[in-house]
Amino acid sequence: MGSYLSSVAIPSNLPRPSFEQLFRKELGLKEAEYNLVLSRFVVRHFQKRTFLLNAGDVSTGKFYVNSGCTRSFVLDRKGKEHVLFFGFEDWWLADFESYMTGKPGKQFIQAIEDLELLYISKPDFHALTVQVPALHEWFEVRQKKMTFAMVDRLIEVKTMCPEERIEKLARARPAIFQRVALHDIASYLDIEPGSLSRIRKRMLGEHRIS
Amino acid sequence: MGSYLSSVAIPSNLPRPSFEQLFRKELGLKEAEYNLVLSRFVVRHFQKRTFLLNAGDVSTGKFYVNSGCTRSFVLDRKGKEHVLFFGFEDWWLADFESYMTGKPGKQFIQAIEDLELLYISKPDFHALTVQVPALHEWFEVRQKKMTFAMVDRLIEVKTMCPEERIEKLARARPAIFQRVALHDIASYLDIEPGSLSRIRKRMLGEHRIS
Repeated sequence: MGSYLSSVAIPSNLPRPSFEQLFRKELGLKEAEYNLVLSRFVVRHFQKRTFLLNAGDVSTGKFYVNSGCTRSFVLDRKGKEHVLFFGFEDWWLADFESYMTGKPGKQFIQAIEDLELLYISKPDFHALTVQVPALHEWFEVRQKKMTFAMVDRLIEVKTMCPEERIEKLARARPAIFQRVALHDIASYLDIEPGSLSRIRKRMLGEHRIS
Repeated sequence: MGSYLSSVAIPSNLPRPSFEQLFRKELGLKEAEYNLVLSRFVVRHFQKRTFLLNAGDVSTGKFYVNSGCTRSFVLDRKGKEHVLFFGFEDWWLADFESYMTGKPGKQFIQAIEDLELLYISKPDFHALTVQVPALHEWFEVRQKKMTFAMVDRLIEVKTMCPEERIEKLARARPAIFQRVALHDIASYLDIEPGSLSRIRKRMLGEHRIS
């Protein structure tokens, strides 16, 4: 785990819109359950460029993204970075295979904006899913959705041309070109940065005309 | 769902080594539980080249592969096929997103060898997971492994050169080049069939010499 600026119990006056929205509204937790859940999480702030996780680390807990943005990447044999995912608000961060198996992971996770995260350890999370069954059920559904999202990413990489991949990403994440560096988006999409820039300019030009 | 040659309750004399191995040994089901599980499955035989599932179909159940081999593929905008997975013995088959959501799927599943499958409908499977908790727990773990396998496929497609991808597949599935057509393996690996053939010949030559 990288360094972090603060690690404190959550004060009641902290703005945590995503987290509260998720647990109170989506999961419909009652006051006592919500307070129990909240009590197991710890707020952590990471500065832009900090590494939350390095390849070879074991993920002993996971982070909920309350605000900010991250990139998860792996290295190939030659040491070149390949971006797998971006993490935005309401996303969970870990190398989830490492989290499940307890073995060292393959992924790096780096802050590309200042982050406000809520951290929970694996044993604490497990205890919560026993105490709050709605949380367990919700995570099972989420797990399945994550599998489908991965299959979709695979289909995208295999079947879509650069234009289609850019269009799909821009539709799913309209603000991504304002928040993330072009070379990271290019790596995520498997497109050369020069081509991404050129194609995007052409696409924006077409939209302005039409 | 495509056509199938037979659909009957499982006779007790049927050879079903993989299925029995999985449920009796791996899951450790007792006699009564195993018989309950078995009673909900139906044997189906599909001839080589038959389609089990077409894009647009809803997966209302899933198949366990007792013997044989399948390919799952999607079409791009131009109608070109892209192989996502192969299904071998001990594999489960469905478009799992369609299975979960009840919406039409994207994947085609085709027999590339004669198949002996065990089919179970979604409501029957759900009922079984309630009656046999070990089955539920086992499927949760399996779901997570499936997610990690998908992340691995994504990493492979993004970071590995053709030689590394071929080597990885040959190590994981030594018999695949005997069972599956070269153009399907090429599509799965995202390598041109001509290049796959050339690289593989060179790799086999090197192994013979060393």
